Amino acid sequence: MRLTIFVPNKITMLTQPTLLLDKTKCIANIKRMASKAKNAGVLFRPHFKTHQSAEIGDWFRQYGVDCITVSSVKMAIYFANHGWTDITIAFPTNIREWSSINELAAKINLNIVVESPETIIYLEKKLSNPVGVYIKTDTGYGRTGVHAEDYESMQELLKQLKNCKNLIFIGFLCHAGHTYVAQGKDEILNIMNTSRQQLLALKTFLANDFPLIQISYGDTPSCSLSDNYEGFDEIRPGNCVFYDDMQAHIGSCKTTDIAVALACPVVAKYPLRNELIVHGGAVHLSKESIIKDGRAYYGTAVHLNGLNWDTAKIIGRVSKLSQEHGIVNVNNEQLNSVNIGDMIAILPIHSCLTANLMKSYTTTDNQCITMMP
Amino acid sequence: MRLTIFVPNKITMLTQPTLLLDKTKCIANIKRMASKAKNAGVLFRPHFKTHQSAEIGDWFRQYGVDCITVSSVKMAIYFANHGWTDITIAFPTNIREWSSINELAAKINLNIVVESPETIIYLEKKLSNPVGVYIKTDTGYGRTGVHAEDYESMQELLKQLKNCKNLIFIGFLCHAGHTYVAQGKDEILNIMNTSRQQLLALKTFLANDFPLIQISYGDTPSCSLSDNYEGFDEIRPGNCVFYDDMQAHIGSCKTTDIAVALACPVVAKYPLRNELIVHGGAVHLSKESIIKDGRAYYGTAVHLNGLNWDTAKIIGRVSKLSQEHGIVNVNNEQLNSVNIGDMIAILPIHSCLTANLMKSYTTTDNQCITMMP
Repeated sequence: MRLTIFVPNKITMLTQPTLLLDKTKCIANIKRMASKAKNAGVLFRPHFKTHQSAEIGDWFRQYGVDCITVSSVKMAIYFANHGWTDITIAFPTNIREWSSINELAAKINLNIVVESPETIIYLEKKLSNPVGVYIKTDTGYGRTGVHAEDYESMQELLKQLKNCKNLIFIGFLCHAGHTYVAQGKDEILNIMNTSRQQLLALKTFLANDFPLIQISYGDTPSCSLSDNYEGFDEIRPGNCVFYDDMQAHIGSCKTTDIAVALACPVVAKYPLRNELIVHGGAVHLSKESIIKDGRAYYGTAVHLNGLNWDTAKIIGRVSKLSQEHGIVNVNNEQLNSVNIGDMIAILPIHSCLTANLMKSYTTTDNQCITMMP
Repeated sequence: MRLTIFVPNKITMLTQPTLLLDKTKCIANIKRMASKAKNAGVLFRPHFKTHQSAEIGDWFRQYGVDCITVSSVKMAIYFANHGWTDITIAFPTNIREWSSINELAAKINLNIVVESPETIIYLEKKLSNPVGVYIKTDTGYGRTGVHAEDYESMQELLKQLKNCKNLIFIGFLCHAGHTYVAQGKDEILNIMNTSRQQLLALKTFLANDFPLIQISYGDTPSCSLSDNYEGFDEIRPGNCVFYDDMQAHIGSCKTTDIAVALACPVVAKYPLRNELIVHGGAVHLSKESIIKDGRAYYGTAVHLNGLNWDTAKIIGRVSKLSQEHGIVNVNNEQLNSVNIGDMIAILPIHSCLTANLMKSYTTTDNQCITMMP
């Protein structure tokens, strides 16, 4: 007889590392961002790479969302198969996937992102279905894209696109990811404003030849901290669906807004070195860290009551991760507040990576939610 | 009609990040460690957390392996369901999983690891089937376990175990994980020798009451760099099945021994800042890094010829990872040696975490190998 993993049917019987999801907080996060976009008159095209779940995706619909962003062709296919008909793949197009892109473009309104002449030439040769095209625009993050002030390169790409049959130029897509390392709200808003100025200057410069240019703007920190989306046609924050310890650290959210936490069993206690060991390691949380006071940490452990975590009751910081072990630094009082065999909750540093590892959610009202396989 | 991901049937048609496995290198790695153990007269009980694959597990059988190590109850169930009948779960026992442990213990020879009186009391109360027990022993790593020189705590646990019906004391299990941060071969061998001395002293101290104590010793760096396993009854290296960039950095293997590499499509090139962008990010490689010359890196990119990578043809270091992006630092010549749309290979920093994320292997002779779901 095959053995199977024991799956508990009662809250108190959680046995293994489990990704908990507070639906109330999650819906509030979705609603807040959707309302801000609506009030500002811009399209909310949320990035679904954070949750990667058809069911959670559906929660956005009641707030008027019908256009989404994803980060891979695979994810576009998953959400297209779950009824989404307007998808932007916000990742420099991988030309080796032209066949899947072509197939997707036949079924849905698909937008892709380009940034090089080679990619445009290749795709125009291969694609037989029309696809919307954004030029990836770099406003200072320095990861991908043509710099917003490099008008010469922009004009070169636009000249190419003008001659394309199936690549339909839409506008400029920017992810101001340097907000993630900004120091405080003012610096984040400065980055947003600089990005806006650069994008609008580019749009003005090209207005005669391309009067319908759309501006698509991303990143959770600035979209969370500002409600001034002037100049943008759409915003694409993604992490705001859950938030996490990094976003709380940046100031994009309150700790109480974080909608996911990893429930972990305590397996050992070390009073002499003020450490707890949990089953919950790099294969559950990811090795994303934040440096604070010169030391890296990998999550914040808080008390768990049934399936609900209490951000006011901090146990300690996760100071180290192995493949399956999490080491939590605690003081004496915190150490005494938990026992071997207790479940505690860890607020992840980066909820996108934790969700991607865990592959399913258990809601705080004890429902299981699946993700893209 | 549902869309499906395009799955290539020809080598040159790889489209997405794909974990490649060189079976020849992998078998050589298995054989080398199995031979060293055999020559030393110790049991080779490899840690299967690295590959997490029933099929790869079977490759060990021809080298006499029939006892294995895993890092979770879930993994023990997976391998038990694939015919393994002697399994040690080398992780401090999570008492909430007592029911699965009990079920496993009824079917196979199961060994677990304990380190606290609470865990022993709880398990003895719950288990109805006998299970082998190691005391997790800390020889200086400082992660988990009772310190090898803390005879008082050891005696306390042994006194408890002596009165247990279903917890059968076997011996001491040690993972000298501090070899991972050691500087060079001498320091690694020193750690191994110190661990050995501590474990043997403990064994001698207890010999009158427990004449049959077994010593189980772990960690890939020292087991790779030494063939002196004197004093150990078994060794449990795991990563040695694949090795990785970290093990090469430590000196446990040659770069040519590394048996896995992540094939990644090049999606963008930035000559001005000497960077390539690949589809291959934190959700493929993990965010494990090595600090070298004061900078973190996340893998080494090399040329790929069909499905075979060439470690002599280095393209550059992965200097940054986002969720899906990998940023590779290159010089001009390296930049010119690859084109957008090429596949390149990245030697992972930590093959266990990369394999865990990728969930399947494509062998260099183009076979697909699955892993634990």
